[in-house]
Amino acid sequence: GDVHYASAKEQASFITPVPGGVGPMTVAMLMAVGFIHRVHPELKLKCILCIYNSNSDIVISRSCVPKPIDCLAREVGLMSDEVELYGKTKAKVQLDIIKRLQAQPDGKYVVVTGITPTPLGEGKSTTTIGLVQALGAHMKLNVFACVRQPSQGPTFGIKGGAAGGGYSQVIPMEEFNLHLTGDIHAITAANNLVAAAIDARMFHEATQSDKALYNRLVPLSGGQRQFSAIQINRLKKLGIEKTDPTTLTEEEITRFARLDIDPESVTWQRVLDTNDRFLRKITIGQSPTEKGYTREAQFDITVASEIMAVLALTSSLEDMRLRLAKMVVATSRSGEPITTEDLGVSGALAVLMRDAIKPNLMQTLEGTPVFVHAGPFANIAHGNSSILADKIALKLVGPEGFVVTEAGFGADIGMEKFFNIKCRYSGLRPHVVVLVATVRALKMHGGGPTVTAGMPLPKEYVEENLPLLEKGCSNMRKQIENAKHFGVPVVVAVNAFKTDTEAELDLICNMAKTAGAFDAVRCSHWAEGGAGAVALGQAVQRASEAPSNFKFLYDLPIVDKIRIIAQKIYGADDIELLPDAQQKVERYTKQGFSNLPICMAKTHLSLSHEADKKGVPTGFILPIRDIRASVGAGFLFPLVGTMPTIPGLPTRPCFYDIDLDPETEQVNGLF
Amino acid sequence: GDVHYASAKEQASFITPVPGGVGPMTVAMLMAVGFIHRVHPELKLKCILCIYNSNSDIVISRSCVPKPIDCLAREVGLMSDEVELYGKTKAKVQLDIIKRLQAQPDGKYVVVTGITPTPLGEGKSTTTIGLVQALGAHMKLNVFACVRQPSQGPTFGIKGGAAGGGYSQVIPMEEFNLHLTGDIHAITAANNLVAAAIDARMFHEATQSDKALYNRLVPLSGGQRQFSAIQINRLKKLGIEKTDPTTLTEEEITRFARLDIDPESVTWQRVLDTNDRFLRKITIGQSPTEKGYTREAQFDITVASEIMAVLALTSSLEDMRLRLAKMVVATSRSGEPITTEDLGVSGALAVLMRDAIKPNLMQTLEGTPVFVHAGPFANIAHGNSSILADKIALKLVGPEGFVVTEAGFGADIGMEKFFNIKCRYSGLRPHVVVLVATVRALKMHGGGPTVTAGMPLPKEYVEENLPLLEKGCSNMRKQIENAKHFGVPVVVAVNAFKTDTEAELDLICNMAKTAGAFDAVRCSHWAEGGAGAVALGQAVQRASEAPSNFKFLYDLPIVDKIRIIAQKIYGADDIELLPDAQQKVERYTKQGFSNLPICMAKTHLSLSHEADKKGVPTGFILPIRDIRASVGAGFLFPLVGTMPTIPGLPTRPCFYDIDLDPETEQVNGLF
Repeated sequence: GDVHYASAKEQASFITPVPGGVGPMTVAMLMAVGFIHRVHPELKLKCILCIYNSNSDIVISRSCVPKPIDCLAREVGLMSDEVELYGKTKAKVQLDIIKRLQAQPDGKYVVVTGITPTPLGEGKSTTTIGLVQALGAHMKLNVFACVRQPSQGPTFGIKGGAAGGGYSQVIPMEEFNLHLTGDIHAITAANNLVAAAIDARMFHEATQSDKALYNRLVPLSGGQRQFSAIQINRLKKLGIEKTDPTTLTEEEITRFARLDIDPESVTWQRVLDTNDRFLRKITIGQSPTEKGYTREAQFDITVASEIMAVLALTSSLEDMRLRLAKMVVATSRSGEPITTEDLGVSGALAVLMRDAIKPNLMQTLEGTPVFVHAGPFANIAHGNSSILADKIALKLVGPEGFVVTEAGFGADIGMEKFFNIKCRYSGLRPHVVVLVATVRALKMHGGGPTVTAGMPLPKEYVEENLPLLEKGCSNMRKQIENAKHFGVPVVVAVNAFKTDTEAELDLICNMAKTAGAFDAVRCSHWAEGGAGAVALGQAVQRASEAPSNFKFLYDLPIVDKIRIIAQKIYGADDIELLPDAQQKVERYTKQGFSNLPICMAKTHLSLSHEADKKGVPTGFILPIRDIRASVGAGFLFPLVGTMPTIPGLPTRPCFYDIDLDPETEQVNGLF
Repeated sequence: GDVHYASAKEQASFITPVPGGVGPMTVAMLMAVGFIHRVHPELKLKCILCIYNSNSDIVISRSCVPKPIDCLAREVGLMSDEVELYGKTKAKVQLDIIKRLQAQPDGKYVVVTGITPTPLGEGKSTTTIGLVQALGAHMKLNVFACVRQPSQGPTFGIKGGAAGGGYSQVIPMEEFNLHLTGDIHAITAANNLVAAAIDARMFHEATQSDKALYNRLVPLSGGQRQFSAIQINRLKKLGIEKTDPTTLTEEEITRFARLDIDPESVTWQRVLDTNDRFLRKITIGQSPTEKGYTREAQFDITVASEIMAVLALTSSLEDMRLRLAKMVVATSRSGEPITTEDLGVSGALAVLMRDAIKPNLMQTLEGTPVFVHAGPFANIAHGNSSILADKIALKLVGPEGFVVTEAGFGADIGMEKFFNIKCRYSGLRPHVVVLVATVRALKMHGGGPTVTAGMPLPKEYVEENLPLLEKGCSNMRKQIENAKHFGVPVVVAVNAFKTDTEAELDLICNMAKTAGAFDAVRCSHWAEGGAGAVALGQAVQRASEAPSNFKFLYDLPIVDKIRIIAQKIYGADDIELLPDAQQKVERYTKQGFSNLPICMAKTHLSLSHEADKKGVPTGFILPIRDIRASVGAGFLFPLVGTMPTIPGLPTRPCFYDIDLDPETEQVNGLF
């Protein structure tokens, strides 16, 4: 029950808070000062024991030589022709494996979530990795961690990397945090092809007669005109059962050739995986070649693209092709939803995404396997890694094994969406929820003071303060209740810091059990790796054998679905639909999208819609400003507040510290 | 001496011209109708012999099973730890190999170029691949083709793929034409990080006092302030020899913290690898969070990024880091060049590019090795593949072997830059120039009629017309003369079409030899693969043993360098420097950049600056509108006309035909 720590005493009370940071790496960042005291003797990999000049996560990450990824692939039961190597430390796994392992029973399915995030961080990613290291490298069970690929933008902005931290990391962390195998780049390419196609099409429709348009859309080739397969799909959608371009009536030609997009209705945005604040709102089309057809538009961060959500929620290549075709990008002037299939671009999207759909195999510091696959933006999408990676991993670990995945943000956001959206589409049933909490973060929920970058932490956070902690435990209690709404046992993981006292750690564990947690254990995997999470691993194993009775929270019309989330999960008295939202409820119901699950776009920093309301806010009405649809991914997303969709660079971005050593080819300064 | 062909008689005279298309694929596209008549019996790979339903390039490409790329790597003498596999058909080669093979003598170095391009196409890429197939698979010599990675934008726009054509292709062509190993995506990410850093920095400088700026740039961390290594570089540049942030004077703080960029002077643009015409001119910064600091900007196609030119011209990781740091992105209000190093982003750029610097190994249809590496935009950069790939390939083939590379556009552009820029930086000396010509294209230079998409070719192009052809040979003669300016023997490759007559083919060969070509041979590698280029291979081998006396064209001040290219290569009477250009000559001379080689940004469709002037225009003055600098890549580029830097999508883009078969995972519709 010792609490281990990594930081020298005199430095431990300085922190760099990350306002708005999601927090998976925050604990690690805060603690990344001083010396590493010990390396666990059971580490599967040989870590170079030395006194680090700078014991940042990247130093730890590269102190271990990763095992060749083809060896790991063999260890986990992949055949060599099911694996595509990407260098020596990354590989893609082909989807064929699902067929081969069809008859294999699934392993146990664990989701890691957290209390409501604070700038002090909770350490969900670190706990996810620490837990699989414990289960795999120490308890000798078959395991897989399934985690999100982080956006590259924040790596060079404020947040830094997101591979876990300390001795619980995915390695090599520079591969994990940078291009990986190019999946996010593929999404950028696919997303922006759609955007270019929308504006080009509006332009060509605006500047051509119906006949000219038709003659160009179905051009003479070798003296003949022929529809492409995608154009025949559009004809079918319009109820025109013809395949010979010369037989269309004038009215049919007009309907076929004119998408008649209302420029005001375009919801599809361009994306970049860069923190570029000057692209938040732009005017496009100002070159004379576009003849005055200017339009206001915006860029989002790539992980906010609906294509990322499609990647995360798809179940096969065929399903992905269908979802990519169904994406609604705008509305016609007569109110019809316009899809990527109408634009003719759906096949090209599938082609651009055909490698991205294969999960990426990497490893932890202790050599246990990790799938890194998809990373939808938790702000406006569901914030969970891919269904395909989870499914393949559950087959690979077999019935006694464990697959641990992480849900972004706190339990009210990431976990709720994990259950109601991801599990709904996957058909998978989770066995255990792991809820991560820290003394410090709970104290902030109890009303502790705000923290300032570069300044020492207020004493409330570094000295024992049981009343403040007890007050803050309300947030944990509410999040335990939220998990229990779904009928799944909850294990609380208390991610211990060296300044936490025994009495404080006991208090959290006791309060968690009183609130209905299956168990609550402290852990110290940051400093100790898997060895520091063995108690957690054992609790999760016991919980996975406990009776569970999984159920969805809703299965209702749009408005009732939103209300039930607001009331049951957030603790709101009710919701208020503002006029735009009301109008969308009507439109989506009419367009046949009302059966889609709900993906709330709400701040993650509070259970309510107001980020500064810590603990468990009560007595509030949740305002629904507007509703958007990701029809291809398969959800509606009500906008509770204004969600930033592309971060910016601060005055001194992380990139100031990042460099490449030309001699060793090592990446310095990632953390 | 037979001329083989691939197209059925009744279809051969229909073409789809590609206005503005560069042309490497054009011949292949034009001919991609009808049946493939024969597969060469000596093909190293087993091609599936069958009657193709649609004999497009992609059908041919996938009719061959590529040999596993690790086998090919072994065959060409790479050690397994020098190779990073990217799936089964692509690999990256580590730069260490240069050290290992230091003592190995280089092979023969051949550059493929063409007459001035026309919409009818010449087939430079196809000839490059056909020639290495001949030299390697048929003449049993060690060979490497070194080619550019094509931009993905045009793949979905007008142009289609660019892997060669017919039986002279790089395979798998869908890998070649799409993400490859992510190099272009890495450039997009790196380029846009610089752009985001520029605008964010101008914003933060505009909204903060010197002191606030300094305190944020050198923040408190653990109670202390410290400069990053990149900041110390900037201090040195400013002549401030201090490392303790507390010791700077107020004046030093201001000089350090304020880049004081003149927003009007920003030459760095954002990029996307998408044909998005609406991004040609935009206004950025219109979100209220940017407080009114709006600015006009533009997106270019990614391959137009200076970072692509750096990748193509660099010689090592260390050199790349230096070039990336030297890139000038703007000018301060006091006239100082502002670099990426000043922005603090140079290290991050090197990190983002550390995999992209490794050449990509692929193969031809006949199993000979290909390096695909870098593809700078020939419009505003030098349009040649990487120096590193050529250097490694020359070592790998050894002294009797051949490395064949391609220079974009016609000989007046791509070849001139190959010699004066690429060879200047690499120190490599070419042995042979292969100049590709076709009967059809030369007829157009002789004054043949224009061609229209979808319509049959005018009879001038499909019937014998010796006077027209003879007239057009003037262009070939001039381009032979251009190659001979550099002292290198020229072999003319006449890429034969089935409608060409014996008399026409003889005429070209005779005129080429009279004009001073070492030899001139007809070839038919599109339909026959390497077997169709054996005569060409033999001529190239003989030419490589002929005496050569390589020399640069210039080594002079800026204006004289431009004049000598205009007069000697383009045949201009003189140049005219317009006021913007005159001003830049003064600025760059003052800033110390006047020693850089010249990279002309001139239309490729004519030897002059007017695209419609075919043949050999005379009596013109070349106007120099402006001059820009790619200081990191290492050249100045005078703008002769308005160069489009991002293509657009036509009414019916190629993507209408592109789709993925979910069953077989095959890509359909790329051609």
